[in-house]
Amino acid sequence: MNINILLFENFETLDAFGPAEIFGKISDFQLGYFSMTGGVIKSSQLLEVQTQPVSAARRHDVWLIPGGQGTRTLVNDEKFLLGLRELAEKAQFCLSVCTGSALLAKCGILDGAKATSNKRALSWVKSLSDKVLWQDKARWVVSGKFYTSSGVSAGMDMALGFAADVLGRGCAEETANRIEYIWNSDSNKDPFYIR
Amino acid sequence: MNINILLFENFETLDAFGPAEIFGKISDFQLGYFSMTGGVIKSSQLLEVQTQPVSAARRHDVWLIPGGQGTRTLVNDEKFLLGLRELAEKAQFCLSVCTGSALLAKCGILDGAKATSNKRALSWVKSLSDKVLWQDKARWVVSGKFYTSSGVSAGMDMALGFAADVLGRGCAEETANRIEYIWNSDSNKDPFYIR
Repeated sequence: MNINILLFENFETLDAFGPAEIFGKISDFQLGYFSMTGGVIKSSQLLEVQTQPVSAARRHDVWLIPGGQGTRTLVNDEKFLLGLRELAEKAQFCLSVCTGSALLAKCGILDGAKATSNKRALSWVKSLSDKVLWQDKARWVVSGKFYTSSGVSAGMDMALGFAADVLGRGCAEETANRIEYIWNSDSNKDPFYIR
Repeated sequence: MNINILLFENFETLDAFGPAEIFGKISDFQLGYFSMTGGVIKSSQLLEVQTQPVSAARRHDVWLIPGGQGTRTLVNDEKFLLGLRELAEKAQFCLSVCTGSALLAKCGILDGAKATSNKRALSWVKSLSDKVLWQDKARWVVSGKFYTSSGVSAGMDMALGFAADVLGRGCAEETANRIEYIWNSDSNKDPFYIR
């Protein structure tokens, strides 16, 4: 199963590379790093990474969409949103971290689906679409083929949750142990829920 | 305070970019990504990142050394170890994650210091130097200017611990909350200790 990670200017580093660390440890998954047009992309933490253009993606098993400051402008970028919608439609599974769900919501693909986002950004994210069934309290949410996680670090819990759903809980637990990660394996346990 | 992250071929992605996420959220810290000779460096998770040569580092406040598969060959690379020793000597603080401590141990800079590493790799790491006071049970260890953490994810707990020591616990807690990270703030609490 190919895991394609979609990067864009000012993505949040850990949103993308927390899950990448986890998926990279599991031999059933093959990682690829993409952006809409390819080339070097810089994260909010000034990390410059090489990407392939999305047109080079050979498979669409999984697309992972990080969040970050860059989403604040991309929610108004019609061309980006059309491209994202196309990828999300092709995807067998589509995962987002933090405000990555803002992008998915804005391109309309989450209409009627349950979803979540970073709790400190949730009021902004909610304002982008009233057709999404936003969940105020969730570490991550599964709705059909969509997995949306809460803020930044929650992406790692979701990635392990996805691995558990696809490959079994033992695989997820072994992966967490290898990287000495204290997995919050309960998607309903959300310590960052704001009342 | 500048945080310089030293990358090398087959470094472990989260070892470097977990702490980068945390330090990047704190305005007192400025991040830079380096390698011995600069250029593009590929992680074990196939991520290709741009680096500056270490000769371009203007300050030596903090050097962070990740671990990963690449350390298995670098412990026998005299030129690398000499360069690393020079950086570690110049550093005001020197932090390592996972088997990054194997590199520091092998270059002799940890002689007489307490240190730890990934628990599954600890027997190998210990075999590299009997002059280091290896700690079998610790999420991370502070010994003078050296902070060494246990495996992969432990680097994030250590990074927050370092921020707490330098800037106060409130700063570390606020940073953890912003990235929705469940901080294991007790350096002695090591769920991955192997009896």
